[in-house]
Amino acid sequence: MPAPVLNAEQIGELLHEVFPQAFYPGCGLSLERVGYGDIRVRREFHEDHLRPGGTVSGPTMMELADFAMYVAVFSAIGRQPLAVTTNLNINFLRKPAPADLIADAKLMKIGKRLAVGEVTIYSDGSDEPVAHVTSTYSIPNGR
Amino acid sequence: MPAPVLNAEQIGELLHEVFPQAFYPGCGLSLERVGYGDIRVRREFHEDHLRPGGTVSGPTMMELADFAMYVAVFSAIGRQPLAVTTNLNINFLRKPAPADLIADAKLMKIGKRLAVGEVTIYSDGSDEPVAHVTSTYSIPNGR
Amino acid sequence: MPAPVLNAEQIGELLHEVFPQAFYPGCGLSLERVGYGDIRVRREFHEDHLRPGGTVSGPTMMELADFAMYVAVFSAIGRQPLAVTTNLNINFLRKPAPADLIADAKLMKIGKRLAVGEVTIYSDGSDEPVAHVTSTYSIPNGR
Amino acid sequence: MPAPVLNAEQIGELLHEVFPQAFYPGCGLSLERVGYGDIRVRREFHEDHLRPGGTVSGPTMMELADFAMYVAVFSAIGRQPLAVTTNLNINFLRKPAPADLIADAKLMKIGKRLAVGEVTIYSDGSDEPVAHVTSTYSIPNGR
Repeated sequence: MPAPVLNAEQIGELLHEVFPQAFYPGCGLSLERVGYGDIRVRREFHEDHLRPGGTVSGPTMMELADFAMYVAVFSAIGRQPLAVTTNLNINFLRKPAPADLIADAKLMKIGKRLAVGEVTIYSDGSDEPVAHVTSTYSIPNGR
Repeated sequence: MPAPVLNAEQIGELLHEVFPQAFYPGCGLSLERVGYGDIRVRREFHEDHLRPGGTVSGPTMMELADFAMYVAVFSAIGRQPLAVTTNLNINFLRKPAPADLIADAKLMKIGKRLAVGEVTIYSDGSDEPVAHVTSTYSIPNGR
Repeated sequence: MPAPVLNAEQIGELLHEVFPQAFYPGCGLSLERVGYGDIRVRREFHEDHLRPGGTVSGPTMMELADFAMYVAVFSAIGRQPLAVTTNLNINFLRKPAPADLIADAKLMKIGKRLAVGEVTIYSDGSDEPVAHVTSTYSIPNGR
Repeated sequence: MPAPVLNAEQIGELLHEVFPQAFYPGCGLSLERVGYGDIRVRREFHEDHLRPGGTVSGPTMMELADFAMYVAVFSAIGRQPLAVTTNLNINFLRKPAPADLIADAKLMKIGKRLAVGEVTIYSDGSDEPVAHVTSTYSIPNGR
């Protein structure tokens, strides 16, 4: 596997620059591993994420999956902050405990105009996935 | 079409009771129309929803779609706050202006164990959809 | 709504020319209505379509949905036989009777590089959909 | 991993018994590996699978993915021929060469009422996937 086009530190700086309302010190999101099109991010647990039944809500997981794909795209194609999601499909598999969420994103295709990947989300401390996502990003103006 | 099992006022009270961190006075979500399995909700614009490019972010739309489906499920099967999403698929069609979002949800199937619906999201003031969603909810213990 | 770029007769000729193993006299597929990005096709029932339980199989419906989208793309952007599906999502809603299938396809977005539409499939003689599809086609070389 | 509930020979016999129009000697489908919820099937190339552009058609891949999930369900929950697909989402990643297709299906969740899995499809002789599928099967009467 080639080295990532941007490493974790560079992606963190880019996110803070272009998306400051989502990514800032204390936002609860962190980049745990950044390879080429193959990354792991963590979402710190917060009580606001809970839904009826005491589990982490679906939108919390969808937001994390979309963020993980965004990071994976940067790791493979570099500084493209205007890359946008065109499709996201999520299957909720198990009810996540009130704990941190960990998302592993891996790109399956890195084309000129489209990048397609999958994201598997775990509850911290468990090996069984709580959700699985596939998603497509469109890369503006191609590359 | 039959009358909704719960009307807008009853669903608003239920949401505030079971999901107070998401639905409370001033939260920016409102129920504009509640028919049987056929509802409209509105999401007031807030600058926090913006993403790079100056458009409303994908997770804002996914959260709204999931909320709209939750309301549609209540309108058709009544008080089932533990109903959970099992699948959600979203296609992002156009970049939404920095404006309120309106979501029309309609159930296509209301089964004993599963409810399936579609949600079309508009930017307030435009006729062209910005996103389209299909989603499945699982109804605990059947009905 | 504008007139279709190609009408039913022209699309039938194009299909027979470029995809003769799928569309030929007696193949069981017919174009019932062709508007601009808004079409209806029919799939004649054949016993080979049945699956265990005596209902029409899922792949029969997926193939029909993909065909309906292909026709809808031609109706809106003209002769583009190399247009290819990039994503298809199907929800199976009810078990189809052993009867003809009817598919209504409608494009929600007709972009330069991508067309996105939805397809609703009915069993002939019933008003309740048996399946609902959303799908994206990629248009080669843009337009 | 536990042993499969039904092995390849037993699943082959079951398929031939309940779905003779799809699975019979010479049909072109074969079971290459059957583990517990983790299987590989092969689809022999046939010229009828080609579409404009000289690549294997989307419906050929969707049918194979659905078949692979059906086999995976049998491997994990045994004789349940009335199990039905409720959702299938496919991303087409690359144009498949005119060659055999190989599908690896793996279940991510084996619940009482629903089984969820992913299928990765390859063109024989290539390591890069041509399509990726996630799918949900409903198990009649639970288990």
